[in-house]
Amino acid sequence: MSAKPAAPALLFYADTSASRDLLYLGRFECHDPFLALHHRDRSIAVLNALEFSRGLKESAFDEILPLEPLQAEARKARPDVRPGPADIIALLAAKLRISRFVVPDDFPAGLLERLRARCLDVTVATDAVLPEREIKTAREAAAIRAGNRVAAAGFTAAESLLRRAKISGKKLLLDGQPLTSERVRLAIEIACLEAGGLALDTIVAGGDQACDPHCRGHGPLRPHELIIVDIFPRHAATGYHGDMTRTYLKGRASAEQRALVDAVATAQKAARKVLRGGAIASAVHAECVKVFAARGYETKATPKGAVGFFHGTGHGLGLAVHEAPRISSPVHEPLKTGAVVTVEPGLYYPGLGGCRIEDVAWLTDTGHKLLSSHPYAWELA
Amino acid sequence: MSAKPAAPALLFYADTSASRDLLYLGRFECHDPFLALHHRDRSIAVLNALEFSRGLKESAFDEILPLEPLQAEARKARPDVRPGPADIIALLAAKLRISRFVVPDDFPAGLLERLRARCLDVTVATDAVLPEREIKTAREAAAIRAGNRVAAAGFTAAESLLRRAKISGKKLLLDGQPLTSERVRLAIEIACLEAGGLALDTIVAGGDQACDPHCRGHGPLRPHELIIVDIFPRHAATGYHGDMTRTYLKGRASAEQRALVDAVATAQKAARKVLRGGAIASAVHAECVKVFAARGYETKATPKGAVGFFHGTGHGLGLAVHEAPRISSPVHEPLKTGAVVTVEPGLYYPGLGGCRIEDVAWLTDTGHKLLSSHPYAWELA
Repeated sequence: MSAKPAAPALLFYADTSASRDLLYLGRFECHDPFLALHHRDRSIAVLNALEFSRGLKESAFDEILPLEPLQAEARKARPDVRPGPADIIALLAAKLRISRFVVPDDFPAGLLERLRARCLDVTVATDAVLPEREIKTAREAAAIRAGNRVAAAGFTAAESLLRRAKISGKKLLLDGQPLTSERVRLAIEIACLEAGGLALDTIVAGGDQACDPHCRGHGPLRPHELIIVDIFPRHAATGYHGDMTRTYLKGRASAEQRALVDAVATAQKAARKVLRGGAIASAVHAECVKVFAARGYETKATPKGAVGFFHGTGHGLGLAVHEAPRISSPVHEPLKTGAVVTVEPGLYYPGLGGCRIEDVAWLTDTGHKLLSSHPYAWELA
Repeated sequence: MSAKPAAPALLFYADTSASRDLLYLGRFECHDPFLALHHRDRSIAVLNALEFSRGLKESAFDEILPLEPLQAEARKARPDVRPGPADIIALLAAKLRISRFVVPDDFPAGLLERLRARCLDVTVATDAVLPEREIKTAREAAAIRAGNRVAAAGFTAAESLLRRAKISGKKLLLDGQPLTSERVRLAIEIACLEAGGLALDTIVAGGDQACDPHCRGHGPLRPHELIIVDIFPRHAATGYHGDMTRTYLKGRASAEQRALVDAVATAQKAARKVLRGGAIASAVHAECVKVFAARGYETKATPKGAVGFFHGTGHGLGLAVHEAPRISSPVHEPLKTGAVVTVEPGLYYPGLGGCRIEDVAWLTDTGHKLLSSHPYAWELA
């Protein structure tokens, strides 16, 4: 509503799986790229006939323009070519008297070039175009908590299968069949669906597989091995994600396995002790590093990949599973009050196994509120 | 292996949900953006410690370089700044003697500018960078067929719920509770998971909701109303999608509803009759338009959205749900032999309801092979 004629219009052209900023702006999931603007405190989307009516009903855009009349108008000016997004943007610039645009860093390069070829003034932003997305409202925090409730339903399902499984030599059997990563993942995915969320790419990885932190896991799970379960479902009603990890072992843990799990749990507590708005991200990460170093857990590169603690302590969580901020060694900026971050130290040593424990925190000036809740019992008889 | 020193290196920086081309190149799902090159017939990815070892084991890249040593090397040159992707690309250009890059149309604009600021020669492609992706191999066709088998399991689950439901006045009851879009969707999602696929954003929309073709549907389903069910699961083992639509009605259809469904089924057959490699996309679409026009079904814009047949007849299907080619009125290019496309005419009239029927075809020189199979029975007692 306020007149800021000098400010450039923020311009998007993306589908909302690729641009979570666009999803944040319009609260409208769309699998095909579409145009949207934020100009003079108003958000405007251009939707084709397939999406227009849904956009009117479901989205938070202040205004929705149908694409086809704009295409017809653009065609009048250049009847020889099929109008593309650059033509529509040029038309809108004239209609809405927009003299300058700013686009996000991930704006499509081809469209940027076509806009500039039309002599439109387009700047690529070097920082976040919607920095407010990093600060979560109470409503957003509640949505993330709901996402973590979905994840917790997944852990309950996984634990039930692991508890029911029988140890038979080097195998785990459930109802006479080998208990595999796939079976546990299916049970988790069904439990998450029934709890109102969609768990994509859930990790159920045992033994050395768990030493690749992003390996999803496959084949038979074995007794007396650490099993990492990482669930990051999208809560269907809100689009916000949960993200939690627990590490399990069916059978009897060795002293080395217990020491590993205890180190990770202690590191998580150490990080949480200093985690608050204003804390330097790298200093939070350093708390985990300190615990591991004190206990002799070395981090190093090997030809087959890194071992030890070779990822960050956490990342922002919201409409995307990974978003700002990052909590890792090269990030020396302070964390912001209102940010929602994961806290997920881990240790990975092929032969011994991997362990990661992950919870989610909403930062306050003096500390944080946990947005995730599920027991940490890991050694399952 | 062949020496083509003059050809520019194809450069990607994306996560594989945003860039299906990158997924096609490396057959490796990664949720965070990473660098990849295709240079002198070799594909090379740069992966951080979190992904490196998984990339070695799971991906189809010819070579995988660990990110961290490259970062350390870049830091030597500019110790004051944290090295970003532009620094790593500049380093690789020097190491691999790459004098020119080409990037896809959706390459991030910010990175393009940073590369050019380093005087790297980068061209944005105006056409598909991996045009071979449009032509499916027998193996890819089989994967899409498997995706459609997952979708068919979803239809079977939906039909079972609709058949079991009881009509009670203007309601559908199942086990004493209203049968909602959400309940049917959950049953479909579970059936798809059990069949080995993940059905995202399944549409179960009845009555006027179905007149928004991309409305997912919510709330109670009603007897004697058309219900559109559109399932496009990703087959977990291969990453390829199925995409099928059936329209149902629980109870007794009116003459108008039967005529609508018959028109759509007839339009689909008419399109399939001319569908082959070499056919002009717009001419295939025109077959559907002709059937609808002959039967008096008008397509037009209204203030609340379009009615009639206001979307294309089909789209390419593969690693993405929507990919090249498009079968619609403005596309006058010939379809290619080997392309896999959906055939999905639909009609939508608020008050009467919506109907869409969708199957998937693999184009040959003389016709096509159907990659989807499920009965068309729609009026369920």
